[in-house]
Amino acid sequence: MPQFLDHADPDFETRFTALLTAKREDSPDVDATVADIIADVRARGDAAVIALTQKFDRITLTPDTLRISADEVAQAIEEVSAEDRAALELAADRIRAYHARQMPEDAQWTDAAGATLGWRWTPVSAAGLYVPGGLASYPSSVLMNAIPAKVAGVGRLAITVPTPDGVINPLVLLAAQLAGVDEIYRIGGAQAVAALAYGTDTIAPVDKITGPGNAFVAAAKRRVFGKVGIDMIAGPSEILVIADGDNDPDWIALDLLSQAEHDESAQSLLITTDADFGRAVADAVNTRLETLERRAIAGASWRDFGAILTVPDLDTAVALSDRIAPEHLELCVADPVALSDKITHAGAIFLGQWTPEAIGDYIGGPNHVLPTARSARFSSGLSVMDFVKRTTLAQMTPDALRAIGPGAARLAASESLEAHGLSVTARLRKLNG
Amino acid sequence: MPQFLDHADPDFETRFTALLTAKREDSPDVDATVADIIADVRARGDAAVIALTQKFDRITLTPDTLRISADEVAQAIEEVSAEDRAALELAADRIRAYHARQMPEDAQWTDAAGATLGWRWTPVSAAGLYVPGGLASYPSSVLMNAIPAKVAGVGRLAITVPTPDGVINPLVLLAAQLAGVDEIYRIGGAQAVAALAYGTDTIAPVDKITGPGNAFVAAAKRRVFGKVGIDMIAGPSEILVIADGDNDPDWIALDLLSQAEHDESAQSLLITTDADFGRAVADAVNTRLETLERRAIAGASWRDFGAILTVPDLDTAVALSDRIAPEHLELCVADPVALSDKITHAGAIFLGQWTPEAIGDYIGGPNHVLPTARSARFSSGLSVMDFVKRTTLAQMTPDALRAIGPGAARLAASESLEAHGLSVTARLRKLNG
Repeated sequence: MPQFLDHADPDFETRFTALLTAKREDSPDVDATVADIIADVRARGDAAVIALTQKFDRITLTPDTLRISADEVAQAIEEVSAEDRAALELAADRIRAYHARQMPEDAQWTDAAGATLGWRWTPVSAAGLYVPGGLASYPSSVLMNAIPAKVAGVGRLAITVPTPDGVINPLVLLAAQLAGVDEIYRIGGAQAVAALAYGTDTIAPVDKITGPGNAFVAAAKRRVFGKVGIDMIAGPSEILVIADGDNDPDWIALDLLSQAEHDESAQSLLITTDADFGRAVADAVNTRLETLERRAIAGASWRDFGAILTVPDLDTAVALSDRIAPEHLELCVADPVALSDKITHAGAIFLGQWTPEAIGDYIGGPNHVLPTARSARFSSGLSVMDFVKRTTLAQMTPDALRAIGPGAARLAASESLEAHGLSVTARLRKLNG
Repeated sequence: MPQFLDHADPDFETRFTALLTAKREDSPDVDATVADIIADVRARGDAAVIALTQKFDRITLTPDTLRISADEVAQAIEEVSAEDRAALELAADRIRAYHARQMPEDAQWTDAAGATLGWRWTPVSAAGLYVPGGLASYPSSVLMNAIPAKVAGVGRLAITVPTPDGVINPLVLLAAQLAGVDEIYRIGGAQAVAALAYGTDTIAPVDKITGPGNAFVAAAKRRVFGKVGIDMIAGPSEILVIADGDNDPDWIALDLLSQAEHDESAQSLLITTDADFGRAVADAVNTRLETLERRAIAGASWRDFGAILTVPDLDTAVALSDRIAPEHLELCVADPVALSDKITHAGAIFLGQWTPEAIGDYIGGPNHVLPTARSARFSSGLSVMDFVKRTTLAQMTPDALRAIGPGAARLAASESLEAHGLSVTARLRKLNG
């Protein structure tokens, strides 16, 4: 059974704080192993990657077969049904249309002092996308990571996807093709991250690595950070539904379960102004858990981390929501837009009862890679911005330097940085004769 | 003597690669010490911060004196000369004007399927800025970190600045006041970072921590990352000047020295199309090094890491520059704008001989916190974007769900995520039946 919390209860604050700070995931400490793997790949390149792939994925590769060839891709994609292809194409088109609007604009202006200032955005030259193998090999994740990179203008986009025992998901290959991925390597784990970061004879290094993965992949990304850029290290998924009593309990139950079925560490929370509705949702969850395919996982998540919170009004719900800073926030209330305007911290908001969170996982358009573990307080979901970088620009004229140069020289003197000041005053001396 | 490299030499590629990959900084491994300090602050709060400040800064504080009072600030600021104040005010105004243009815009639209999509930016609620004490206590850094936060709309901005033996820099306090900083604490080191991240009875926790610091501060920022957001971990400063022969060698020498004087690990590089000019710059550097106040530091940096590279043409200079991905890039050539258009990777570009890099350190307007160690390939300087985060928005209508819901259900099925699919199909059933 999940927890029931009533805002009116005297122990509410204590229990809510406990809910907020509950440690849901015990990451195994694999850092030493990962350090060894990275060192091995740096030292031996392809040979290390091939040996580690033999060991972990039980397949024998050569430098020539590290990469999945265009023929193999074409052949695998033939297996995809027309319906699956149409759905992936629709998703790719919608994700591309959404992210195309995120391209930031260059700027340039000349100010009153005569200084021309501005900035310019350029794409990362090469990016690598880690795609998990096995159960968590989600074609939707390929679209969500690869499309923003290509919209940003990344010239070279490589994917690594492990193929344990040689098994590969044709939908992952189709998603990569639809997204415009340039290279696909059948490798995984820390060795794949190391190969992308440092390069081998066969795999050219990239500048940025994104994508989800297990503890080894996460530890490897942390270790190569600095050598390359990385995206966030995602924690287990979360959903918060704020609902009034005027909802179908089964719909809300399914929304909660669609996070719970991801992972035993996932967290599904309901805040409602209607205690009876809250109980009805709990009942609906239990009914669905009787038959759900992933009931073992979803049941454990719901039992250990699920909660239903009753509040006196929606303003209280907003205040609690901002403390939770949820990855996904569903607003199933009469006026969801008005309520969303009051929310400050959330990765993604789904407005109204016709917008189940699963729409956002696949096909809505916004990215499904979102900040977890309360990090929506300070970070954002994956976007085109993760694949571009800004160069600032400044150009002084003699007049501009005359106008603001003395101030710079003064500040340099106050910081005892003489050469800084001299680099300005030497020029001013020329200007002033 | 710095290195001279000629692009025509047979060993150029080998020596250039060595220059690119030279390890310039040996960070002491202080991670275990820092972990202990953070644990102590989490366990004992104010008491730990006070004890550590006694130990490292030799001052005795109480919870009431951790914060520098408004009276103390006002009193210290009275010491600032009118000239210094005017220079700081000019810098603050110019930095504010530049960063005000960086505020990203919200977006919302309804697409052909009837889905309303968009995103909204909100500021981080509370941010902390670490300001080093002692020699590296730069008021310009306070402006560069604090102003973007306040432009972003950060509600609460706290500064920590250690005051060893009670000594504080009045210009730092004035810079904080000009930037609109809300709270100033006289603490430093890993204990300050821990207090900002986890909070104490006196210091409320923040959501994001930025600012430069020593190895202890850097290790502490890495450790609290995840609990709060952090900015980049900056390495030693770098400048690359691309210059033709039509420049004053002394000006270019001073530009190179203005990075070299920061730190023995700083790196100053000149790429020129004119070998004679390169030698003239080397001579000018040597002349300046005879009298420069910080000649010991600047001389060591120039000797160990400086280099003058001769190239046959500016296109070759551009290609080398993009491999270096410099933090600061000065283009002292006849048409700097045309040349800058060819550059892909650089933190900040300074165009033309009237734009010494030091202008950008203080007063130009763009931020001086910039990506080092080749990370301009994948990251950007500090900006308003570091203090805001994006919430994506999606709202389906019944018609929109009818249009794209089946695709989502199909993809959920292909990923074996049944509850995801059911959350969509349960709603579609209602609509269709």
